[in-house]
Amino acid sequence: MAGPAAEGGDAVRPVAIERLAEAARRAGDDRVAHEEPLEIQVGGSPLAVLMRTPGRDHELALGFLLTEGVLESPEEIVALRHESVTPDPAADGNVIRALLRPGVRVDVEAQRRSFYAGSSCGVCGKGSLERVLRTAPPLEDASRFDPEVLYALPGRLREVQHAFDATGGLHAAALFDADGKLLVVREDVGRHNAVDKVVGWAAERGRLPLRGHGLLVSGRVSFEIVQKALAARIPLVAAVSAPTSLAVELAAAGRVALVGFLRGRGFNVYAERERIA
Amino acid sequence: MAGPAAEGGDAVRPVAIERLAEAARRAGDDRVAHEEPLEIQVGGSPLAVLMRTPGRDHELALGFLLTEGVLESPEEIVALRHESVTPDPAADGNVIRALLRPGVRVDVEAQRRSFYAGSSCGVCGKGSLERVLRTAPPLEDASRFDPEVLYALPGRLREVQHAFDATGGLHAAALFDADGKLLVVREDVGRHNAVDKVVGWAAERGRLPLRGHGLLVSGRVSFEIVQKALAARIPLVAAVSAPTSLAVELAAAGRVALVGFLRGRGFNVYAERERIA
Repeated sequence: MAGPAAEGGDAVRPVAIERLAEAARRAGDDRVAHEEPLEIQVGGSPLAVLMRTPGRDHELALGFLLTEGVLESPEEIVALRHESVTPDPAADGNVIRALLRPGVRVDVEAQRRSFYAGSSCGVCGKGSLERVLRTAPPLEDASRFDPEVLYALPGRLREVQHAFDATGGLHAAALFDADGKLLVVREDVGRHNAVDKVVGWAAERGRLPLRGHGLLVSGRVSFEIVQKALAARIPLVAAVSAPTSLAVELAAAGRVALVGFLRGRGFNVYAERERIA
Repeated sequence: MAGPAAEGGDAVRPVAIERLAEAARRAGDDRVAHEEPLEIQVGGSPLAVLMRTPGRDHELALGFLLTEGVLESPEEIVALRHESVTPDPAADGNVIRALLRPGVRVDVEAQRRSFYAGSSCGVCGKGSLERVLRTAPPLEDASRFDPEVLYALPGRLREVQHAFDATGGLHAAALFDADGKLLVVREDVGRHNAVDKVVGWAAERGRLPLRGHGLLVSGRVSFEIVQKALAARIPLVAAVSAPTSLAVELAAAGRVALVGFLRGRGFNVYAERERIA
């Protein structure tokens, strides 16, 4: 290798956005991190589905198999190959198969952590979207949010986010109403867990579905964060940082407004801009 | 609820550190995010193990079951209970069981994503450590690193981390040698994936085990990042941000030096400070 290259062009995706700053709105372009599922198969059986950035799949699969203890040494496999997937050719780049050396045995059942299940319909981005939308169809409510409400949120989150201040190591998620009032704030080492705690809080109080509410997260927005919001019927997700490509696609398909880079008196709208008014 | 409370005292853990700034070293205290596994059982069967911050387990389990589509409504369960785990009482707080309403069926096998497997030995922090150390025993090499080498790393990472600059949405991981030379940089929407790509890169070139090398990550350090470093036999993990409690414990047990808050000309050492010299 000539030098330590970072990911290439396939690691980012162009998206059309609307930028709000103070009272001004304008259309623009942004680039988001590319996110797609990758199914890793070992000896013909699906082992795991990772949400990953495409472009270094051989390295990712080999590293995953070694660091998770599935393989003891790279010599246990003879090849890693992208599989052609029928009847879903859109998933062709998203399945990789490890061919084991003769005599090597891996107990795939014992190792499996595939939650997206093993069928190929889940391993293209479009398949992942369709899977979510089957159980959580697009929102139909007309909830809208005032930009002034959104501008004020990060400051309110900081006021109550005690543990993060102490450690710098926790993600936060908060539920707010159309007036910008924070109803609950939860923190966790896991980004998804903080969102699950917020939804669980609402479920315990009989407040689902969460029509008219927004979800604020302290970090980035991946596909699974939007999936969880859609499952709880939350019409707006706002983040201090960036969304991924598949998060943007799912938000658009599910009619969830997606706001990123919410800092100071400005933010980007990545999906469902009609809800910002 | 009186107001939107963030997590309480159980969300953070005190740790003893050593602080390096310029040429000075001094012992100190820090607080890190508390991380422990939680096994969620449904109808008596283990469904998933999440690495989470303890304290809101009922909310987390309920939210997880709803947002992942395992349950359609909170009414499908009659109770969520922490289980007593024998013969491992240390895991008692780390197993929660959803009792289903009569007539409700959940296909746990189809839903499972437990990679840590279902045995109770994996669901206390100590059990998680022992499980990793069985397949990846503590390091025995004497690799050491110069603080000056570490100070220079974040700047070098920024120089090559193209996609992150463009999107703000990617995690980066880099492998460096004892002279501070970056050998490879990889980016991904998933923190763990970036590390797996680095290890896969080294495996493809026959460079495992990675004695004498260090791993640099752009964000936080969780248990699984240290697990992956230990599996690849990397004696130092350095991060721009904070580690979790279980990451600190595993690093100490595995003799992996753990450096956090590497910014400017200073950093904190959370484990194996003998390797910084």
